[in-house]
Amino acid sequence: MSLLVVGSVAYDSVKIGAESRTDALGGSATYFSVAASYFSDVSLIAVVGEDFRESDVALMQGHNVDTAGLERASGSTFRWAGEYDPDDLNSRETLDTQLNVFADFSPKLSDDHRGAPYLFLANIDPALQLDVLNQMEERPKLVALDTMNFWIEGKKDELQKVVEAVDVLFIDETEARMFSGKSNLLHAASAITDMGPHTLLIKRGEHGVLLFHDGSIFVAPAFPLETVVDPTGAGDSFAGGFMGYMAATGDISSRGLRRATVLGSVMGSFCVEAFSLERTSALSKEEIENRFRAFGGLTDFEHLAEDESLPRP
Amino acid sequence: MSLLVVGSVAYDSVKIGAESRTDALGGSATYFSVAASYFSDVSLIAVVGEDFRESDVALMQGHNVDTAGLERASGSTFRWAGEYDPDDLNSRETLDTQLNVFADFSPKLSDDHRGAPYLFLANIDPALQLDVLNQMEERPKLVALDTMNFWIEGKKDELQKVVEAVDVLFIDETEARMFSGKSNLLHAASAITDMGPHTLLIKRGEHGVLLFHDGSIFVAPAFPLETVVDPTGAGDSFAGGFMGYMAATGDISSRGLRRATVLGSVMGSFCVEAFSLERTSALSKEEIENRFRAFGGLTDFEHLAEDESLPRP
Repeated sequence: MSLLVVGSVAYDSVKIGAESRTDALGGSATYFSVAASYFSDVSLIAVVGEDFRESDVALMQGHNVDTAGLERASGSTFRWAGEYDPDDLNSRETLDTQLNVFADFSPKLSDDHRGAPYLFLANIDPALQLDVLNQMEERPKLVALDTMNFWIEGKKDELQKVVEAVDVLFIDETEARMFSGKSNLLHAASAITDMGPHTLLIKRGEHGVLLFHDGSIFVAPAFPLETVVDPTGAGDSFAGGFMGYMAATGDISSRGLRRATVLGSVMGSFCVEAFSLERTSALSKEEIENRFRAFGGLTDFEHLAEDESLPRP
Repeated sequence: MSLLVVGSVAYDSVKIGAESRTDALGGSATYFSVAASYFSDVSLIAVVGEDFRESDVALMQGHNVDTAGLERASGSTFRWAGEYDPDDLNSRETLDTQLNVFADFSPKLSDDHRGAPYLFLANIDPALQLDVLNQMEERPKLVALDTMNFWIEGKKDELQKVVEAVDVLFIDETEARMFSGKSNLLHAASAITDMGPHTLLIKRGEHGVLLFHDGSIFVAPAFPLETVVDPTGAGDSFAGGFMGYMAATGDISSRGLRRATVLGSVMGSFCVEAFSLERTSALSKEEIENRFRAFGGLTDFEHLAEDESLPRP
């Protein structure tokens, strides 16, 4: 067991134009686990209700995700319903949120889980994120965290405390500005890495991701796609690819972090090509490697050699 | 004389938060010419009024811009006034537009201008753009065009006609969608290149540029900046860097177009660091080359070798 994720497992009802899905498998820990499972062993800590389908447990187990930490509580599984604007998938409206068994989620780690060297704290209450970190036997080699505007607005002090304790922070562009109070992204990134994380990933949706590490910036575009169906889960799939690569290689050099960022972008790009985990759960090794290779061609250009000048009139 | 631009020379009054400039030098042909002047000889065709300052002619001539085609008509110079939201520089409001002498602009090319091998038709009435192209002695080696929503909405047929006749189209992301009627950018790009241009540059402001050419896509990020003062002229400075490189090298291979796109991004990034042409007109060769070199580091990562696999659990 090398990579542990604590987060949500949910049923999502999503409507986009004429297309929709009802009670489809979702949740941050689900997307993360399945994406990471292509590269690393993964264990998941989450809670579901009595209505959770055996076929969905089987889907995770089919990817060798360790579901020993998937608690089944009395009540219903967490449900989210939303609608995206088909002409602007960045714009979505939440139609309904039913926390159900997730309202009382209190992650309990087994002895085995407590020893995980790689930990991802998906987007849940920062107090729970900190509690999980405190349950670890020893400080994992790499701890990463995701969060959102809801916690920045409602639990900023707790969030600040857990951010100070992690190595890697995943955060959306607007949330990075909100959390740091800086409108310029470079200033926002400096303010956040000054709090503690040595690595910061600012997510920009269809415009890709910025990686800040050790004073350098890496810009990964989003992979251009002919078909974008459903953006739900893209951020967690990105984190899954990133952390899966980290857990598999342990390479936290700039080289490793940049490759992990590209692999995260690859996994996020597959996620949005279908509803739910329809695409992410059905990938071949070849598809993933081919898209990783194609990624290089997107940004390649011939650099200016040390002794070369630009043309002059 | 190798690169000819036809467009506007204007006085802009710009307000951004507490900062502002009144009647500062602007206009598409101005930004383009000065940016391109670092790499290639440039001639400009435009019209100004009796109030146009000699110091502004001197600024262009100081960059060896050939101003023989800068017509001085009776009346006032084209004026634009606008205000940007300091917290979101993508959002701007036009406060005033006075076309003045620009209302009757009818570009007349001298024999010398008619022979230019590289031509940039900046954002003006597509009927005038087509008229300029028809005045050329022979088809230039490379003709590029910029346009905007105003012409897409008001003169779509004329615009379509001139787009069919050019090699390179510069267009904003939302305008590419509007012009093609396709919301997916890859579909929009295919629809536009099917009309005629072999090269398409879709501008995404702070998110960079997409280059479509010969079935491949190149994604250039915007250079991350600590200070963004005024976005006015960024698109024309981008086009100036791009076409300046083209006119200097003649390299319309994928290699050349990608390097030209990076150089355009470099020139656009300098432009927004100050009001008007304050930064663009005062650059050293070293500053430009250093930023071009830094650009490479933004997107570099170690590709997956042909015989290399991604890690597996």
